[in-house]
Amino acid sequence: MTEAPENTVFVGNKPVMNYVLAVVTQFNNGQKSVNLEARGRAISRAVDVAEIVRNRFLNDLKVGAIEISTEELTSKENEKVNVSTVKIPLNK
Amino acid sequence: MTEAPENTVFVGNKPVMNYVLAVVTQFNNGQKSVNLEARGRAISRAVDVAEIVRNRFLNDLKVGAIEISTEELTSKENEKVNVSTVKIPLNK
Repeated sequence: MTEAPENTVFVGNKPVMNYVLAVVTQFNNGQKSVNLEARGRAISRAVDVAEIVRNRFLNDLKVGAIEISTEELTSKENEKVNVSTVKIPLNK
Repeated sequence: MTEAPENTVFVGNKPVMNYVLAVVTQFNNGQKSVNLEARGRAISRAVDVAEIVRNRFLNDLKVGAIEISTEELTSKENEKVNVSTVKIPLNK
């Protein structure tokens, strides 16, 4: 993934609420849209983050067109590995 | 989730290729669209299934508008639990 624009939150393996807080903070600081991005098993967590933000914090939030794709990574053993990715646009 | 229509594949905890096979079989049997549905941690696997089917088996496959939502389930301890769900429409 190239250099991320400011309004992108990469979801990894931290607790869900870390990312929920990051998203809510961005909207409170005036962002009109925030993109959640994740790979592999963190994709489920990214969906959790989107759902928690919109159900418990920002009820008027809209989920844009969700994109899925595949990225080719190089593993530690120098092998090519395909991993799924997701991008979830959240818009006020 | 109510009674599933015939062209729905629920992704759970089985190996990814089980679901890839189920989807490819449906299209080979003449279905024009197949919906992948999953909950919780299986959401990542559902995205894997969609990506493997379209990258390795049916290159002309289109991914429709992906929907995410939250379902309230009752746990074994009779507690209300929210779980994220995803629906990934695959269209020929």
